[in-house]
Amino acid sequence: MIEFNGVLGHEFVGEVVNDPEGKLEGKRVAGEINIPCHNCSRCDNNQYKHCKNIRAIGMRGKDGALAEYLTLPRENIHIVPETVSDEEAVFTEPIAAAVEIAEQYHLKPSEKVMIIGDGKLGLIIARTLWALGFNVEMIGRHQEKLDTLKPFKIKTYLEKLYPEKQPDIPVVVEATGSTSGLKAAIDLVAPEGKIIYKTTTAKNHDLNLAGLAINEIKLLGSRCGPFEPALNLLARNDLHLNKMITEEFKLANSLEALKRAREKSSLKVLIRP
Amino acid sequence: MIEFNGVLGHEFVGEVVNDPEGKLEGKRVAGEINIPCHNCSRCDNNQYKHCKNIRAIGMRGKDGALAEYLTLPRENIHIVPETVSDEEAVFTEPIAAAVEIAEQYHLKPSEKVMIIGDGKLGLIIARTLWALGFNVEMIGRHQEKLDTLKPFKIKTYLEKLYPEKQPDIPVVVEATGSTSGLKAAIDLVAPEGKIIYKTTTAKNHDLNLAGLAINEIKLLGSRCGPFEPALNLLARNDLHLNKMITEEFKLANSLEALKRAREKSSLKVLIRP
Repeated sequence: MIEFNGVLGHEFVGEVVNDPEGKLEGKRVAGEINIPCHNCSRCDNNQYKHCKNIRAIGMRGKDGALAEYLTLPRENIHIVPETVSDEEAVFTEPIAAAVEIAEQYHLKPSEKVMIIGDGKLGLIIARTLWALGFNVEMIGRHQEKLDTLKPFKIKTYLEKLYPEKQPDIPVVVEATGSTSGLKAAIDLVAPEGKIIYKTTTAKNHDLNLAGLAINEIKLLGSRCGPFEPALNLLARNDLHLNKMITEEFKLANSLEALKRAREKSSLKVLIRP
Repeated sequence: MIEFNGVLGHEFVGEVVNDPEGKLEGKRVAGEINIPCHNCSRCDNNQYKHCKNIRAIGMRGKDGALAEYLTLPRENIHIVPETVSDEEAVFTEPIAAAVEIAEQYHLKPSEKVMIIGDGKLGLIIARTLWALGFNVEMIGRHQEKLDTLKPFKIKTYLEKLYPEKQPDIPVVVEATGSTSGLKAAIDLVAPEGKIIYKTTTAKNHDLNLAGLAINEIKLLGSRCGPFEPALNLLARNDLHLNKMITEEFKLANSLEALKRAREKSSLKVLIRP
């Protein structure tokens, strides 16, 4: 893991107080987290997100959003539509990461997409892929988190109750954030099927991967995504994101908020200035 | 691993002595190894290779080719072109497995394809992808095996001499057959690049896979492939497969041949009736 000393926070909405070009002042905006160098072979190749000298707000070489003020390059900034509330706009970044799945890979509306992991990212992926018209289901470990998907009529299963005899699943999204998820995904996915891999745990896997070759499975890495389609989805106001906010804190109590966010029962913890 | 009691051998060429339809008698043929049940959900879905009740000659539920006679369903049999020698035709199965890479995934002639692993499968994949017009290179551990690729002017590297500072590689084929290959492949491949995964070792990986998600890498499983395009490539007679045959044994000495085939210096060991 990369050591980071600085201000944390990378999912935010804010008001522009100073734009050198004078165009954005007073606008409510969200911001992309990656700041590329525009000066390496990957940037030359338009792979800005994979820049060799990348900075990322709140994570690497750049202070984040748990502050009264924050600076960002102009290209990172996106205006939030007026109909999108602050409480929805703070989800732009993880929704963009969910949109990235459809941006990278061809998913078919006719195919079942099984999401494994009912953490914050998994639940946002479920909403987002539902909004994009896909046939989503979810396996998780917490009934109360799975229940946040009820407004979408998404079929959910507690892991321990998932029926053993099930048809092969063409697309599995591994969003558990733990090393246990990949084995479950390999067991669930159909031969020649896709596993979308969202987990970035620093722990090592201890796992037999022969099944990937034998069943010709595609294990497809996926990370950050595009903000504009995420904001367009948010403007529909049908993602029921209020159910995702489990607590609010004042900025002065950020340490307490971070502690709370690490607890299993927590989903999104909102911090207000 | 599946326990198998029976006759080994799944890479062969032979003459048909009895065809119930009377059409193939006297023909020289190669045979596909997988025998599907035609009666399960995967066969219904045309995924015969991934049949739930699959048999495979010399491996699972069906005697193999280390014998004077062998039976096979008609659909598994392919006539070997006359210009293809016996010594070339025995490579049809592994060449088909190499052709499968291009059958499954879109590789671009302009992109570098780095093959890791100079064992029998790696060396056959190198020849086959070269024959298909791709820009192939190889990293291996044995200079004498890498040297079998000289007729193709394929660039090869001994692993310990591979330069540290190299450009990102768009396509890496992991054909080491060991657990060490995948980490090397993840380190070599470009962000958003493809790793074609051919290794089916029964050993567990002990590996951090966060790089797959962070760099949005595609890890793509690949196994058996189609015989007709493999035979068409063999008919060109330019794969220099004689360099791959390190020994010949008589059928009566098969146990000795199998022992020899396990040694590191061995590539293909030919057995004649």
